[in-house]
Amino acid sequence: MQVSELLSLFKRVDRSKTFQGFVIFVIVVSALSIGAHTYHLPAWLEQSLLVLDVAITVFFSIELIIRYLASDGAKAFFSKGWNIFDTIIVIGSLVPLGGSTILLARLLRIFRVLRLVSMVPELRMLINALLKAIPRMGYIALLMFVIFYIYGAVGSMLFADINDFLWGDVSIAMLTLFRISTFESWTSIMYETMAVHPLSWLYYLTFIFLTTFVFLNMMVGAVLDVMGEETQIMRDHQAKKQLDETDDAQTAILATADDTALEIQKLHAKIDQLTAMLTANTTKAQR
Amino acid sequence: MQVSELLSLFKRVDRSKTFQGFVIFVIVVSALSIGAHTYHLPAWLEQSLLVLDVAITVFFSIELIIRYLASDGAKAFFSKGWNIFDTIIVIGSLVPLGGSTILLARLLRIFRVLRLVSMVPELRMLINALLKAIPRMGYIALLMFVIFYIYGAVGSMLFADINDFLWGDVSIAMLTLFRISTFESWTSIMYETMAVHPLSWLYYLTFIFLTTFVFLNMMVGAVLDVMGEETQIMRDHQAKKQLDETDDAQTAILATADDTALEIQKLHAKIDQLTAMLTANTTKAQR
Amino acid sequence: MQVSELLSLFKRVDRSKTFQGFVIFVIVVSALSIGAHTYHLPAWLEQSLLVLDVAITVFFSIELIIRYLASDGAKAFFSKGWNIFDTIIVIGSLVPLGGSTILLARLLRIFRVLRLVSMVPELRMLINALLKAIPRMGYIALLMFVIFYIYGAVGSMLFADINDFLWGDVSIAMLTLFRISTFESWTSIMYETMAVHPLSWLYYLTFIFLTTFVFLNMMVGAVLDVMGEETQIMRDHQAKKQLDETDDAQTAILATADDTALEIQKLHAKIDQLTAMLTANTTKAQR
Amino acid sequence: MQVSELLSLFKRVDRSKTFQGFVIFVIVVSALSIGAHTYHLPAWLEQSLLVLDVAITVFFSIELIIRYLASDGAKAFFSKGWNIFDTIIVIGSLVPLGGSTILLARLLRIFRVLRLVSMVPELRMLINALLKAIPRMGYIALLMFVIFYIYGAVGSMLFADINDFLWGDVSIAMLTLFRISTFESWTSIMYETMAVHPLSWLYYLTFIFLTTFVFLNMMVGAVLDVMGEETQIMRDHQAKKQLDETDDAQTAILATADDTALEIQKLHAKIDQLTAMLTANTTKAQR
Repeated sequence: MQVSELLSLFKRVDRSKTFQGFVIFVIVVSALSIGAHTYHLPAWLEQSLLVLDVAITVFFSIELIIRYLASDGAKAFFSKGWNIFDTIIVIGSLVPLGGSTILLARLLRIFRVLRLVSMVPELRMLINALLKAIPRMGYIALLMFVIFYIYGAVGSMLFADINDFLWGDVSIAMLTLFRISTFESWTSIMYETMAVHPLSWLYYLTFIFLTTFVFLNMMVGAVLDVMGEETQIMRDHQAKKQLDETDDAQTAILATADDTALEIQKLHAKIDQLTAMLTANTTKAQR
Repeated sequence: MQVSELLSLFKRVDRSKTFQGFVIFVIVVSALSIGAHTYHLPAWLEQSLLVLDVAITVFFSIELIIRYLASDGAKAFFSKGWNIFDTIIVIGSLVPLGGSTILLARLLRIFRVLRLVSMVPELRMLINALLKAIPRMGYIALLMFVIFYIYGAVGSMLFADINDFLWGDVSIAMLTLFRISTFESWTSIMYETMAVHPLSWLYYLTFIFLTTFVFLNMMVGAVLDVMGEETQIMRDHQAKKQLDETDDAQTAILATADDTALEIQKLHAKIDQLTAMLTANTTKAQR
Repeated sequence: MQVSELLSLFKRVDRSKTFQGFVIFVIVVSALSIGAHTYHLPAWLEQSLLVLDVAITVFFSIELIIRYLASDGAKAFFSKGWNIFDTIIVIGSLVPLGGSTILLARLLRIFRVLRLVSMVPELRMLINALLKAIPRMGYIALLMFVIFYIYGAVGSMLFADINDFLWGDVSIAMLTLFRISTFESWTSIMYETMAVHPLSWLYYLTFIFLTTFVFLNMMVGAVLDVMGEETQIMRDHQAKKQLDETDDAQTAILATADDTALEIQKLHAKIDQLTAMLTANTTKAQR
Repeated sequence: MQVSELLSLFKRVDRSKTFQGFVIFVIVVSALSIGAHTYHLPAWLEQSLLVLDVAITVFFSIELIIRYLASDGAKAFFSKGWNIFDTIIVIGSLVPLGGSTILLARLLRIFRVLRLVSMVPELRMLINALLKAIPRMGYIALLMFVIFYIYGAVGSMLFADINDFLWGDVSIAMLTLFRISTFESWTSIMYETMAVHPLSWLYYLTFIFLTTFVFLNMMVGAVLDVMGEETQIMRDHQAKKQLDETDDAQTAILATADDTALEIQKLHAKIDQLTAMLTANTTKAQR
């Protein structure tokens, strides 16, 4: 009895807006304390932050346990991706903030800021929308990688002797190409190789044109994809509405037509009656 | 009587195109005089500009008072955002151009150029459209801030010892990340940290991909949002037109159907009459 | 008689594809000869180019005269913007290539390449489309200018003492701001002023956000504008088609309804006849 | 008999998913071996890579021969662009990896990575889509070239004496302009010429505005073009669906109308019969 009472309390706590607001507040405090660590602080403040960190870690653990108990078993709890996400972050931040693991512990604690995303529904929706956009870009990313790989291999073969730091091997060359695709001091790289291979501007210009062109088409495609879906939904909705209204009118026409048919049936009945009467008359007259 | 005459004069002045044109002219003169201050000028011109500034300040104050009196009381006047905007700018430029407040006074006078926006209706509409676009970008801005904060904290933890100027604390690191997101000499920053942490290119590439990807989706979303509204309006309009035309046709069909029903009613009446006659005949014949 | 024969010959020449192709060929040759001038050439080639230039100038003048004579008077000729454009370019390139005017003459001759635009119909259409896009961007350009002017004046006031070369006066400051808006070494400018005013990063970040935001909305607006027009045309066309088809169906329904009405009219006539007969019968029987 | 059995075996091999998967695997291995060449490798690994290269070259040749034999003759084989593409790549990589041709051979082998594009249908579709986008951009590219050429010639004329490396002749100037259009250290170029020609910022600003404006309109045009096609298809499809549903309703109305017409015909028949009877009656009565 006492356990089930506790559980229903947990469920109420889990759903209450005040509790959710407090969790968001703790997340923000946690984020600020992480940021504060990057400044040079007096010893007493460092000490207070350590105490605060323990408090936050305990709070997040308790909050997760409450949410777990408030859910319907482990299966229901872990079927939601965001719960798995929260669990990993909370477990990750259990690494103690001291000794040899201090850097790792701090890095893991930074990801507690991401709990903001799992707590605020609007951010959760945004992330879901972004995740949906990933597969649509998969093959274009593959094509981009092929372009980078080919140019990287060519660049590494031709220019490695000119500048080993930029073109040393295919992976370094690909990093250099990424830099060129952001237009970061790309001309100094070009002028350096043009001193040896005067035609090497062709290499850079074709690369820039190709990647810009593919990127442009990728962006256009992305806009069209999302737009396609959205307008499809909107248009379907509108077409339905339009059809409904047309349907109403057509139902009215059909109803009138049915009324007419009924009236004509009545006419038939009356004429039949008339014919019967006339037949009777004629028969009588003949008799 | 004299007061109400003055008020109606003010209203006429406030609405006249000539007065509005003159106000815009004074705004432009004010802007030019502000710009002139940034040049090294001979003393007599400096003096003239000071006199001009007093004249402009007086003119703007009078213009605001006229507009205030021409409106229907303080409530009606301050219910329009642009009036509050103008009042603040005019009050702000009352700070005297001399002594210790000279820099502040000059800075506040610059914002008089913004009165151009409140005077030209097309610019006012543009600003309204831009303001409308802000809330739609709110949660994306929050998400961007979370990304910057996490990368800033990580960067500050890992790279503070390498370059204190760029990665000293979380706020400096976030400024550095903003610089990286504009591709400003980002590779030199990367090469510096790669000398210590050879895998740190992962940090930069994931950051660039993430922010570009979120920015891209934000832009696509913005286009779709505005487009959605606009095409929705357009489509509704068109659908209405189409429905109206269809309605006309259906009304015609229904009218014809009603005519038919009427004609059939007349048939009924005639046949009823016929039957009545025949019944009378038969009755007579039987008698 | 001979004159009108010459005129009709001119008209035929003006319209012939071969002649237009040859004009385009001469334009390309003219462009190449202009480009060749920028190289260090042997004296004999320089001499040949001068002869070629005279030939091209004469050819363009004759071509313009032919086109003028082939048109219906000066009014008809100059009513087309492209003809005025060609005339200005041809007259401009009559400046002799020698003496004190050599640089001016060469610069004016470069614009002969633009005659390619006036000769190729597809390029002419492109330019017309671009010109149409200008007014739509007018007020946004004005808004941008206001933003640049305010930031320029503020920047010049605050930072002129730090770097006179970048912030000396309002016009130099605006050029610096344009440079910042292209992200060209903007951080070194920021770091310089941050050394004196530590909060000046706010100035740069708000400027970048503002201009990017306005630019983004401008772009979105441009896409929507053109799209609005294009889809409006397409949709009207489609709606018309749809309505036509619906109309056909409704015409068929109305035709059937009319047929029904006619048949019912015939029924009326027959029943009237029947009634008349019956009345006659009854009358006879009564007699 | 044995030959045709072999051919049908080839056809089965050519179509089997396993074989295609294995070809993709060999392409990836080939790409990795090309990338490995750019690192400094121990002699035994270099040797193994040479052996691997021979194996891959033989495998690709055999695969191409199988595909050729599996097709219906040379005409059918070479009518597909991708087959020509594969043939060129395979033949190109037959150049031996040694002696004086080692660099050329390696470069040609890199393009074997492109066979990934011809093997994966999704990439093939992407490339087809990109190829389709090229002609649409043809005239805009020509317009861009004209702008670059004019600015290049002007820049080379005015600035060649200031910096021969950047503005030496028209082709070097065009490369410099391309660099400016990517905003790569363009201000240092501008400041250099402004020291001699103080108004030369006009040259750079008009160039940047012009190219950005044309590029922007090009992008808008590209979005609209693709979108136009896609939405046209979608809209046609939807309009068809809508018309079909409307048609169904109209068919129902027409069917009811036809039924009515039939019933009225029956009424006619009955009344005709009635009239006949009455006429007979009257005749009898008169007799």
